[in-house]
Amino acid sequence: MSKRILIVGATGTVGRALVHQIAGRHEVIPVGRTRGDYQVDITDSASIRAVFDKLGKVDAIVSVTGDLHFGPLAEMTTEQFRIGLNSKLLGQVALALIGQHFLNDGGSITLTAGTVSDEPIRFGANASTVNAALEGFVRGAAVELARGIRINAVSPSVLEESMSSFGPFFPGIEPVPAVASRSAMFEA
Amino acid sequence: MSKRILIVGATGTVGRALVHQIAGRHEVIPVGRTRGDYQVDITDSASIRAVFDKLGKVDAIVSVTGDLHFGPLAEMTTEQFRIGLNSKLLGQVALALIGQHFLNDGGSITLTAGTVSDEPIRFGANASTVNAALEGFVRGAAVELARGIRINAVSPSVLEESMSSFGPFFPGIEPVPAVASRSAMFEA
Repeated sequence: MSKRILIVGATGTVGRALVHQIAGRHEVIPVGRTRGDYQVDITDSASIRAVFDKLGKVDAIVSVTGDLHFGPLAEMTTEQFRIGLNSKLLGQVALALIGQHFLNDGGSITLTAGTVSDEPIRFGANASTVNAALEGFVRGAAVELARGIRINAVSPSVLEESMSSFGPFFPGIEPVPAVASRSAMFEA
Repeated sequence: MSKRILIVGATGTVGRALVHQIAGRHEVIPVGRTRGDYQVDITDSASIRAVFDKLGKVDAIVSVTGDLHFGPLAEMTTEQFRIGLNSKLLGQVALALIGQHFLNDGGSITLTAGTVSDEPIRFGANASTVNAALEGFVRGAAVELARGIRINAVSPSVLEESMSSFGPFFPGIEPVPAVASRSAMFEA
């Protein structure tokens, strides 16, 4: 059965692969930061609310977006650390907190964490924190969501498409193509 | 061998029990938010830096402090969610980021997470997020800390001393006395 699926981060590396995978089978509403059919700034609750007010009810909210800070722990400042907390963590949490009220019964929320939560890498303290936090949020939120609404986090590894920028941070870790990091969850 | 131990949150429920346990064996420097020999506001990096500048090198930094928001997920706002992110999470992370440079070789950092990271409770989404985040931070930071410095997080359950305020959030969970939640780590 065709679902109405909001994809936040639809113009990013994972987002484009995801849209490509499911657009033929579902009604996809692509949302980008500055591109896409709709725009949202996930660090601004009013911006999130505005896009939901415009779109109305959906069956699924998928978030494949959020910034992190990568850098040496010995030089890391709290301001740098805030980058991940405000964007990838609180931005996605805000999508869930606001979005829960715009989901049809039995709908789903899918957030993006990352393998670094459990498999730390050098320069990745902010990523380990944010990704673990998202998994904690999913556990905490899952016990309270009403009307059969589900919430999950997906933890992609480093992507083939991102090796030029992130590869040096993941020595010895085998990259996966973006399309493989996402397709599984929509086959369920 | 006697160590110089900074305890942030020394005037709180766990902090008082901790000071009581170790004050006879180690040089304890108690730090409170508004009380204690020294004061620090963990949400203000300048305040953290000022207390370390005043005190100089220590052998251990123990944090038993930080605020969370408890409340229904269906009504939770991003502003409420920020309470835990700014205080218990980023406050303790800031203590570690700044404090790493004021630790003697082989020193240790001990942060306080909580069992709700893995055992979610109703109204506890902010706590699950923050506590899991702290565990993620510890995993991420541990691989980078220099000079033999160690970092750990302790996850106390609900305390006997806190049952009047937090008891209703933890139905069926057996409380532990504050003194028991802390003594183990200093016997190691």
